[in-house]
Amino acid sequence: MNFASDNTAPVCPAILQAIEAANHGTVASYGADPLTERLNALARDIFETDLVIHPVGTGTAANALALATLVRPYGAVVCYDEAHIATDEGGAPEFFMGGAKLLTLPAADGRITPMQIEAAVARAEDGGIHHVRPEAASITQATEWGTVYTLDQVTELGAACRRRGLALHMDGARFANALAHLGCTPAELTWKAGVDVLSFGATKNGALAAEAVIFFNQAQAAGFERRRKRGGHLWSKMRYLSAQLCAYLEDGLWLRNARAANRAATRLADGLAPLPSARLIQPVEANELFVAMPEEKIDALEAAGADFYRWIEVPGEPRPIIRLVTSFATTDEEVDDFLALAATA
Amino acid sequence: MNFASDNTAPVCPAILQAIEAANHGTVASYGADPLTERLNALARDIFETDLVIHPVGTGTAANALALATLVRPYGAVVCYDEAHIATDEGGAPEFFMGGAKLLTLPAADGRITPMQIEAAVARAEDGGIHHVRPEAASITQATEWGTVYTLDQVTELGAACRRRGLALHMDGARFANALAHLGCTPAELTWKAGVDVLSFGATKNGALAAEAVIFFNQAQAAGFERRRKRGGHLWSKMRYLSAQLCAYLEDGLWLRNARAANRAATRLADGLAPLPSARLIQPVEANELFVAMPEEKIDALEAAGADFYRWIEVPGEPRPIIRLVTSFATTDEEVDDFLALAATA
Amino acid sequence: MNFASDNTAPVCPAILQAIEAANHGTVASYGADPLTERLNALARDIFETDLVIHPVGTGTAANALALATLVRPYGAVVCYDEAHIATDEGGAPEFFMGGAKLLTLPAADGRITPMQIEAAVARAEDGGIHHVRPEAASITQATEWGTVYTLDQVTELGAACRRRGLALHMDGARFANALAHLGCTPAELTWKAGVDVLSFGATKNGALAAEAVIFFNQAQAAGFERRRKRGGHLWSKMRYLSAQLCAYLEDGLWLRNARAANRAATRLADGLAPLPSARLIQPVEANELFVAMPEEKIDALEAAGADFYRWIEVPGEPRPIIRLVTSFATTDEEVDDFLALAATA
Amino acid sequence: MNFASDNTAPVCPAILQAIEAANHGTVASYGADPLTERLNALARDIFETDLVIHPVGTGTAANALALATLVRPYGAVVCYDEAHIATDEGGAPEFFMGGAKLLTLPAADGRITPMQIEAAVARAEDGGIHHVRPEAASITQATEWGTVYTLDQVTELGAACRRRGLALHMDGARFANALAHLGCTPAELTWKAGVDVLSFGATKNGALAAEAVIFFNQAQAAGFERRRKRGGHLWSKMRYLSAQLCAYLEDGLWLRNARAANRAATRLADGLAPLPSARLIQPVEANELFVAMPEEKIDALEAAGADFYRWIEVPGEPRPIIRLVTSFATTDEEVDDFLALAATA
Repeated sequence: MNFASDNTAPVCPAILQAIEAANHGTVASYGADPLTERLNALARDIFETDLVIHPVGTGTAANALALATLVRPYGAVVCYDEAHIATDEGGAPEFFMGGAKLLTLPAADGRITPMQIEAAVARAEDGGIHHVRPEAASITQATEWGTVYTLDQVTELGAACRRRGLALHMDGARFANALAHLGCTPAELTWKAGVDVLSFGATKNGALAAEAVIFFNQAQAAGFERRRKRGGHLWSKMRYLSAQLCAYLEDGLWLRNARAANRAATRLADGLAPLPSARLIQPVEANELFVAMPEEKIDALEAAGADFYRWIEVPGEPRPIIRLVTSFATTDEEVDDFLALAATA
Repeated sequence: MNFASDNTAPVCPAILQAIEAANHGTVASYGADPLTERLNALARDIFETDLVIHPVGTGTAANALALATLVRPYGAVVCYDEAHIATDEGGAPEFFMGGAKLLTLPAADGRITPMQIEAAVARAEDGGIHHVRPEAASITQATEWGTVYTLDQVTELGAACRRRGLALHMDGARFANALAHLGCTPAELTWKAGVDVLSFGATKNGALAAEAVIFFNQAQAAGFERRRKRGGHLWSKMRYLSAQLCAYLEDGLWLRNARAANRAATRLADGLAPLPSARLIQPVEANELFVAMPEEKIDALEAAGADFYRWIEVPGEPRPIIRLVTSFATTDEEVDDFLALAATA
Repeated sequence: MNFASDNTAPVCPAILQAIEAANHGTVASYGADPLTERLNALARDIFETDLVIHPVGTGTAANALALATLVRPYGAVVCYDEAHIATDEGGAPEFFMGGAKLLTLPAADGRITPMQIEAAVARAEDGGIHHVRPEAASITQATEWGTVYTLDQVTELGAACRRRGLALHMDGARFANALAHLGCTPAELTWKAGVDVLSFGATKNGALAAEAVIFFNQAQAAGFERRRKRGGHLWSKMRYLSAQLCAYLEDGLWLRNARAANRAATRLADGLAPLPSARLIQPVEANELFVAMPEEKIDALEAAGADFYRWIEVPGEPRPIIRLVTSFATTDEEVDDFLALAATA
Repeated sequence: MNFASDNTAPVCPAILQAIEAANHGTVASYGADPLTERLNALARDIFETDLVIHPVGTGTAANALALATLVRPYGAVVCYDEAHIATDEGGAPEFFMGGAKLLTLPAADGRITPMQIEAAVARAEDGGIHHVRPEAASITQATEWGTVYTLDQVTELGAACRRRGLALHMDGARFANALAHLGCTPAELTWKAGVDVLSFGATKNGALAAEAVIFFNQAQAAGFERRRKRGGHLWSKMRYLSAQLCAYLEDGLWLRNARAANRAATRLADGLAPLPSARLIQPVEANELFVAMPEEKIDALEAAGADFYRWIEVPGEPRPIIRLVTSFATTDEEVDDFLALAATA
């Protein structure tokens, strides 16, 4: 019963097989290989546009490199104040951006609004040379609270960014989960809605170590490859990174995995909802649940071997909050075991 | 006949099997897993000391993070002026060090000397506050010219560094090849000789994407883990990085692979030496050869399908230079095919 | 009637005379001059301890260099969320710190509390390697809202920092104004209360361009001089920077100037208090006033030639806020003219 | 007899008077004042073009901010390997550029050539993503060896830069001295010859602390003001920086001062040339001399109270080298006293 994170899961068999299949003979290093070429073609098909896709090994690298490419060192990024980039990446965005700031905005369910972005820009402009001016906004899809921006919400954020001259970055560490929830096309959720750059996650959804930065606006990609190299994120044996991502995208594996994870989360939520001792803090739209519970109950669950994180407090909720994350590999048995425990513990 | 680089080779079967063996069940992420613990124990055994080992995915990350941990942003690193860190990492060391400088020194065979280090420090100190002061020296073992520092040379460099208050970093992207050449112990070639930090390479010698930074002086490791995180180099599914390194270190695989690569290089060198049209620019001590050849000969080799890089010019040698790199996977047939071609082309 | 800022004032005559007096003959550059030596002696006398004082030309330089000296690039600084360092220095602290973060805390009157600092540290430690850990706290004295931390408040902040292993930095752009308000000694308000480093302002209080960073803990000053040099903040003709600061500190000029500015602010406040159309948002303890007024009144004041800034909105106050700043050079006539205008406009 | 540096000289009286003249009343801070406006007009007149001029307090700030504006963090600057930016600014350029590298080139007399620049760019391009690519070249005028690039030389460097897509920066800490030597117009020596950005020095030639960055290509100036602010180099009381530069430029003061300094250097050179014990290492074209002398002679000069620096060694010259710098304030008596001493010591 490991609900600590989707990154405690193993590698999806199909992805490991793709690595094995790639393992013969010498090929050109640093991305000049057929699998990397194939990945580009696949991504263009799936996103229905002439994009640029650059694989890296971690989500933090994807986000930090993407933002550094969009924002100058004296600029800023607007984001949710509990965004992963703001709280959980050890300062990577600031490091890669050369000191640019994150200007953070409150949001009860993890979703920031166009009005907040406009207000942040207006305030910065009032401050003139003394204030850093936002040059990008970053949203997380699915959010850090397991909610999902609707297509309309993304579209309105995209429009606000365009009005104010900001680029729009989407941290899609759980992009597949959001897409599975919304049921729209990848194109609709990204460039058609005004997203300029996507951090496209795969590791949490079955890969070994594989993420990608996708630029829908090719002009904005200038410099990315040099930044990736100087960030130490250009793999010499790139074929093994591209092999993972190809397998992930081929035959809809990524969406099948995401749907499995989302289903497990819904099963958990449905099981917890009736319990008087548990309260879901947010609607469960992807593969994360946030549950308020009495301290003793949480202790009992942990004592019984359930693995999960305690989360930050929420205004108006006196009880502690726990976070439960499901993955493509979560089984019905694990969910049901946890629910049985939660009902009795 | 791919002699372009040792990173064009595939993954060594034993390492891929270790990845597969690690692929079951959930485990704690970010390094709190049994394989990472095992890696630490293995490395302590092999290096015979109480070290700290931190895996990362690329050699550039290993070098840049190691140097950033040793040197303050207003300091400097002394190194060979064609060192990989100086010319081939896209500025990664400067980026990770926060702008600290590389002070580069000439060296005909890639090996810098204690006297050069002392002179660089003396000059910096003369310049006072206006000059950056070296806080570390970095040497590459095996060097960028395929030569290997002797134990005595490393020991003398270590002593010079200690005298001047510098840390000594060894870029060991091809550490195994150097060790195989020297036949000494890993401890003798590192901390016993005064090396403080080792970038320990595995990718070029059979891994998929796995290097490690080894601190022999634990106090100097402070901050490394935070720097790795903010560099985006902390893998969430760390078990797959540690699995590679464990397999690499177990049962002497790393040295067997290195010996195979070195042997192939020697076979190449022995075959080329008698050819009147070829001249080995440096003694072949590891798995790289640098060969002066007439332009037409080089063109003919390329036309016949041999893969290699043209290298920088060398004073006193009018002909162009090519670099040939062998790997654990290079076969005698490949070598002999190349030699046959070189003899006739 | 210029109440826009204390930096719109001219240079205090005694300071200009000191510059003129320094202007003869050749002297050693970069701080190896007698005036810089004298400044060190003066500062040690006045602060009654064996400190290190380093002059720079701007307050932003003082703050950013001080924080960069205290905090590693992967660390963080805890401060008020409208602190000058957080909002008005164009990202200078992040730049000089090499990307370290400011973790900001709300505070209705600009004063943060020990409990907030402790909570911020506790949260960071919970987050482990993924969160940046605060290594310093920074407080502004007098604050951005014209209030002044009491001696007890500073002492308690100092104790909290010490408990948690944080350094305590004081942004004293208006340190003299705070000191004049409190009537304590410079030592009591700084190192005796637990302040490690002070950005000691003079420009806003009569200098041409002169601030200083004072380290009460000499060990913490290591590297400052190299950082100042690489920040471009080491003046070659340092005598002219030190001359300003010597004149400022001699004969109590700095406190006379601060008292004059504070008095003018009090006179303004006393005149505005009875007006039904004006409300002082904060107690006036130094030389800044924040006044809520109807929009028409503000327009009328501006139309009549009064110079001031509109400020950020305040919860619970529907009217706009203006900021009025007095300086050593503000005359009673200017204050009375403004008051007359405010009463009638 | 202080020949240590031109920055040991005092402030030129006319410049100090300009500061005094500026010292009345309140004026808008941060550059929105009439003197800064006047400075812009003056500079446009003198350089005969529609430039942007931004004052800062130090030469290191001018150079580092100029280069940071021209070069991206993953780029590089080509310069002479003993350039002030490379050796004497404590790493400031790398710091402000966010880690971009200086690629340094040898030059016996301090003057680099178009061929060297082209070769450096060609090599970087050969290295592809692994090598940093130069985005600017920086030349020092007058050079670090007291020589002066001719108009033709600058023009050819400008053409080479344009061919290769590099910006051309001129470190003009002693620009006035070079101009006085060449007798051409400021426009001819800068934008007409292909210079994009000039670090325009005044401090060494009579100012208190005043330099300026002049962009002849306004598009290239984007971001400079934000960089200056976050570098802590935006003076609040900017009028005192602009007042210095206005006085410097008005009525030809800057060229009168430079001619006086150059004349003193020539007088020194003419006096030293006949001495058998002294050898001028370079032609004296500005206000610096480099003289090889026997060790005992140097000791005797120092013992007699002459102030100067010992310089780096020069190939083929066994004796130590000293550097002598004259300034606008150097008197004939000082020169003659030194010469008398040199003849007899």
